[in-house]
Formats: sequence, C-alpha cells, structure tokens
Amino acid sequence: MERILTTQLAAHAGERVLLRGWLHRQRRLARVAFVVLRDRAGTAQIVVDEALDLLPETVIEVSGRAVPSAQAPGGVEVQAADVRVIAAPTEAPPVELHRPEPRESLPVRLDRAQVSLRHPVVRERFRKAARATAAFRRTLEELDFIEIQSPKIVGAATEGGANVFRVDYFGRDAFLAQSPQLYKQILVGVFERVFETGPVFRAEPHETGRHLAEYYSLDAELGFIDDHRDVMRVVEHCALAMIDAVGEPVPDGIPIVRFADVRTGDEPDLAPADERRICEEHGELVFVEGFPTAKRAFYTHPGPDPEWSNSFDLLYRGLEIVSGGQRLHRYDDYVEALRSRGLDPRPFAGYLDAFRWGMPPHGGFAMGLERFVAQATRVPNVREVTLFPRDRTRLHP
Amino acid sequence: MERILTTQLAAHAGERVLLRGWLHRQRRLARVAFVVLRDRAGTAQIVVDEALDLLPETVIEVSGRAVPSAQAPGGVEVQAADVRVIAAPTEAPPVELHRPEPRESLPVRLDRAQVSLRHPVVRERFRKAARATAAFRRTLEELDFIEIQSPKIVGAATEGGANVFRVDYFGRDAFLAQSPQLYKQILVGVFERVFETGPVFRAEPHETGRHLAEYYSLDAELGFIDDHRDVMRVVEHCALAMIDAVGEPVPDGIPIVRFADVRTGDEPDLAPADERRICEEHGELVFVEGFPTAKRAFYTHPGPDPEWSNSFDLLYRGLEIVSGGQRLHRYDDYVEALRSRGLDPRPFAGYLDAFRWGMPPHGGFAMGLERFVAQATRVPNVREVTLFPRDRTRLHP
Repeated sequence: MERILTTQLAAHAGERVLLRGWLHRQRRLARVAFVVLRDRAGTAQIVVDEALDLLPETVIEVSGRAVPSAQAPGGVEVQAADVRVIAAPTEAPPVELHRPEPRESLPVRLDRAQVSLRHPVVRERFRKAARATAAFRRTLEELDFIEIQSPKIVGAATEGGANVFRVDYFGRDAFLAQSPQLYKQILVGVFERVFETGPVFRAEPHETGRHLAEYYSLDAELGFIDDHRDVMRVVEHCALAMIDAVGEPVPDGIPIVRFADVRTGDEPDLAPADERRICEEHGELVFVEGFPTAKRAFYTHPGPDPEWSNSFDLLYRGLEIVSGGQRLHRYDDYVEALRSRGLDPRPFAGYLDAFRWGMPPHGGFAMGLERFVAQATRVPNVREVTLFPRDRTRLHP
Repeated sequence: MERILTTQLAAHAGERVLLRGWLHRQRRLARVAFVVLRDRAGTAQIVVDEALDLLPETVIEVSGRAVPSAQAPGGVEVQAADVRVIAAPTEAPPVELHRPEPRESLPVRLDRAQVSLRHPVVRERFRKAARATAAFRRTLEELDFIEIQSPKIVGAATEGGANVFRVDYFGRDAFLAQSPQLYKQILVGVFERVFETGPVFRAEPHETGRHLAEYYSLDAELGFIDDHRDVMRVVEHCALAMIDAVGEPVPDGIPIVRFADVRTGDEPDLAPADERRICEEHGELVFVEGFPTAKRAFYTHPGPDPEWSNSFDLLYRGLEIVSGGQRLHRYDDYVEALRSRGLDPRPFAGYLDAFRWGMPPHGGFAMGLERFVAQATRVPNVREVTLFPRDRTRLHP
C-alpha cells in the first residue's frame, strides 16, 4: 500500500490507508487510546485498543481504515489500526512538542534544536522563510536579475574591520565576508542586475534580539539607475511579494519619509525606538531615505546636497529589515570618499580596482531573511526563526 | 526615451532607439567607424562618422536610428548615432574582451576577474549556472522538499578533521562547515524532505582542476526511504532538469552500474581515469552504486552485505558530480559504526544527539555546482566556472 500524508486522509475516507510519521502524543481513555501521528504535512488521530508502550517521537507506520469522525481533528480518524515501529528513540524528548505553543525557554529550545524544531508552530515559521526566499528569487528573476555566488572567505574586511571573523587560510590570515557588497558591485559590470542569497558573518559583540553572528542575507544590485529611487522600486517588488508569500497583509504601496523629517532631534541615525515610532505613525512598511552621508558606508553615493546620501532603509513593523542605496561608481570618487573620511586607501586597493574599467551608476540593497520572518511571524527574537543560531555564546548544535 | 536592450533592436527597426552599455570594440574604416556596444543581453553594431576617442569598456549611452543591415550582426544596426559617455575607465582593460574566446591564461584572467568576467563567452557560463541552480530548486520544490539554511560556522568538523578551516570565534576555536550533512539529517526529523544551496569549505591541499577551497553545494536529504535507490531517483530528477536548463542533451534515463563491476582490479575507490572510462563505456551520465562501506563516511548505511554500502556517485562526462547514499538512522548504529572504525565517539556527541529522538530511514546527496557547470560547458577546470575561486594560492579578488 502506498503511504499517504495526514492531510490526504479526508480524501481517502472509507478506505484502508497507510501513514508514516512520529508518535506526537497519546491520550489514554478507559477502553481505548487516541494516538496522534505527525508527519511533514500535519497530524492525524489514530484510534487503538490499548495505549502504545512507546516513547513520544517514536517513528511509526500505521495502517487502518480512514473513518469520518466529528470529534477527530480534520474530520477523519484512522480506526482498527495496526502500528509498527520503524525507529525507537533512546529516551523521551527533552521538550514537549504537543503543547499548542512551546513552553520551554528559548535557550532550552535552542540547546535541543535537534528535536524542538519539530514543534508544529515552530516548523511552520521555517516553511514561511522558505516561501519568502523563493518569492525574493522569483521576483528578481522576473526583473531579469541573475543569481550569483560570491566567496565567503575574503582577503579584506569590506564593511569595516571591527566585527569581522578571522580564518586561518592555509597559514595566512583571511576573513569571513560581512556582505557580498564588493562582489555584487563588480558583477553589475558583467550582468547589470544580480542577486545573491547566502550567509554573511558579523562578529557582533551585542546580545540583542535583532543580531546574529551569522545570518542569511538577500542581496541585489543593479546598474544604469538614475538614483536610489530605482533601487527602492525593486525593494518594493521584492518585499510585497515576500509578504504575500507568507500570507500577511500586503499594502498597496510603501510610503517614503525623509530621514531629516523623522529623526529624534539632531541624532545622526535611527534608534530602535525611532523605528517603532515611525511605523506607528506611517504604517507597517515605511521607507526612510536620505541618511547622513557621513553615517553610511564609504561606498554610498551622496545626494544632490552631499551632506545627505542617496540611501534608504525599509522598516517593517518597527524594525529595519532592508538597507540600501546608490553606490559610488567612479574610481576617483572612491579615492576621494576614503580621503575625506580619513581612511588609508591602500587596504581598499582590491575594492577600488573594480572601478577602473567602466562602471555604470548603480545601487542595491540587502535584506536580512531572519529579520523579515521574525516581523512577519511576530516573534520578538530572530533566534526564534533561525534553525541553528550563532552568537557570541552559541556555537552548538 | 526608454532604454532598450541590444536583443530588442530588431523589434524596433526603423525607429529611434536608446541603448546603454559598454564600448566593447571599435573598427575604424576610411569614412566611418563601427562601434560594438555590449549590454547584459548581447551586443549591437553602431555606425559613427568618426572613431570614438574612448577607451574600451567606457560606459556609454547611444541614441540613433535602428536600421536593417545585412552586414550587421543581428541584422539591425544603429545609424546616425549620438554617443554620450556615462562613465570613463581610468585605463585600458588588462584583458581583451572582444576575442571570440579569451586568449589570456587562466591565472591572468582570475587575477583580473573584475573585468575578465565581462567576456561574453565567459559570462554565459554563469548564466547557465544560475539556470541550473534554479532548476535544482524547482525540481525539489515540486517534490515537496523545503529549503533550509544551515550554519557555516560550526563547533566540530563533520567530514573529518584533516581539511577543515579554523575560525577565531570570539576567542574560541570554531570551524567552517565542510558540508551541511549533520543539519540536513536533523531536519529530516522536522520536515522529512529538505534541500540547501550554499557554500561549503574544504582546506584542500591539492591543486587540481576539480578541487576548490570553497564551492557551492546543492544538497538534499529525504526520510522514509527504502534504500539509496529512492535517493537516486531524486538525483535523476534534479540532474536531468539541470541538464535541460543549460541546453545540453538530456538522456532518457541514467544507467546504474555496480562499483564492484567497474573498478580497476581490487582498488577500493575510483580514480579519475576510472570515471572517464566508465562514462566512455556506459554513457554521459552513469550512476555507480555499492562502494565499499569502509571507504565511505561513517554515517553511510551498509547494504544487505555489510561490506558494500547503500551509496552511490553520479558521473557526468567522466567526472563525479554527485555523491550520496542512505545514512544510518539509529543511535546505536552510529556508536557501533564509530567503534568499528576505531573512532572515539566523544567528538561526535553533538552529531549523535540528532539520532536520540526517533529518526526515519533516510538518505541524501550533494552535487558540486561548479563541477556540474564545468562538465555541461566542457571546460577543463572548475575555476573557469567559479566567479571568484578560492584555493591554496588564491584569495583575491
């Protein structure tokens, strides 16, 4: 007999069926026991004469008859069931997977990710992450972007040296890429429109709910733009497609506010409280544009008034999820930008070489996947939507 | 006027058009000059009265009339053209991009990847890589696999300690993941069917045309299998879809040969010459199954005769591009497998924990994207199809 999934039970009412999955929970009554089997699609109720002498999470195969039952979740249960053990656990799981929501603390669940990720509510968040990532790629492919792979082991820190991880590279010093920035800019010179989805690495000293030492960055870069507004249009396409993919409300468009109009006092950047306030005032999704040139990365293109840059952030439900802007594209402008910031151009020689051979005006953006999913699923910590998070204190499992 | 791409010229014959791109080459005749403009889509011939006093790779905007011309590549050229410079290079490019094939040596081209990747023949290989990657993901999504992201900074070497890169992780020792093996196995326990596309890291001491220190691995893993043949069916779906996506001939199916029948003498593994011979004898794509258990990773599931494992490789045009098999799924079997190989189980404790809480029979595979594309495009070195390769001697650009 062919295995069916729990979600296919209703379509097989009245037939003999075969299910495979995990023993999710049991309830013992006087004359009968109810077993809940969990598979990748959902759960099903199995009626057995006697409670099974099996640990939760035992991998089982169940054959029986699919019978409509008003009391059964999903409206169909399996009766007269034969249960066969496929694989037995060595011990009971250290977390309770059958609660409507996980009850254990986040550190306990992360320490036992091998099993705590099986909780139906938890795993659903990662299905949404997968759908959002697919929507990001699909949107950009439709806009004629091509996918690239840039190296994660690099010779120099491109986003500043403070929070970079050092690698022993055949006895030499190398670093883990903090972003694909340089590479996607180079590849604008080849393909005009590129995107990458991959890990980036930041040796973040902070323990916050927004920061990870390794996260998944959705990056894009495009050439022949007029200014950063062309980039923001691409971000809007991507963000709305991703929000639609995870089943959250999709606004008609995204309002744009000027940094100078929404900052607190003379502060040169937005604090987390500012991000929350701006979304309360302007909507779930808000673009903030025109950050101070001096506060953005050296490759940022200044605006018509050079004190303010052609840069932007996208806020979602009170948190920055995208940062982007127009980049410098002329070699001499890079040399001058480094000089005016008091930076020695020599460590940047490899970066600057990319701009010797003709680069069009271009810009791009990066979105943190975990931040997007955290906001979309309304969890307070990105570690809730990271399969195996890495931070200052966490390197396992 | 809206910019059009060079490939759209023919559809605009007789109209005024606007093109943007790079000055690919010039030919000066007595009374006229032919300029070739290159954009992301292709190239177009532009007729100007006088040769342009511009370096190759100058970023230009051209407006003029699209005129059918039998001599022009593509059948349409731009006449009465106005040329405006968008961005000038600082110097002439160090490689010749207008040759039908690149003429410079591979090391010279890799040193100058910032510009050598712009060669039309070269960049087309990376478009094929992007199409193949998309086909891999699409195939697995259709088979109900979900995409995962596993950490690249890990606490222990999972594929053996010899060729692992060490990372300074907040003052502690950590490592770069040699594969997502442990994580995709754990996640079979959550989602049953998972895939990942991402970088993996091997401190390969060898300088060969098949090895890189960092490459892009296409990984999948699935639960509730009978044996490795179920995994091979998934590999076949993926490989044929990828070959179709890059426009190479797609066979009807993939023959399977037994390792014991195709090896040279009593050798315990296949040498590169064996892989070439097997494809000459059996076809462009060949599965080899049943490698000696002792020669495969400790997590490999033995076959009915435990000397031979439920494992396989896929060869394409004489090179192994996929390795896979059924894995052990019981905790006790892992302990025994480590013991029988004389390995101390303690460093593997984190790995073994994944099998304490009920894991179904499962298996999976990994495909090296660069190897696939190298074989599909018939280049002799994976560095020809890696944007910014990393090896013992190469860390830039």
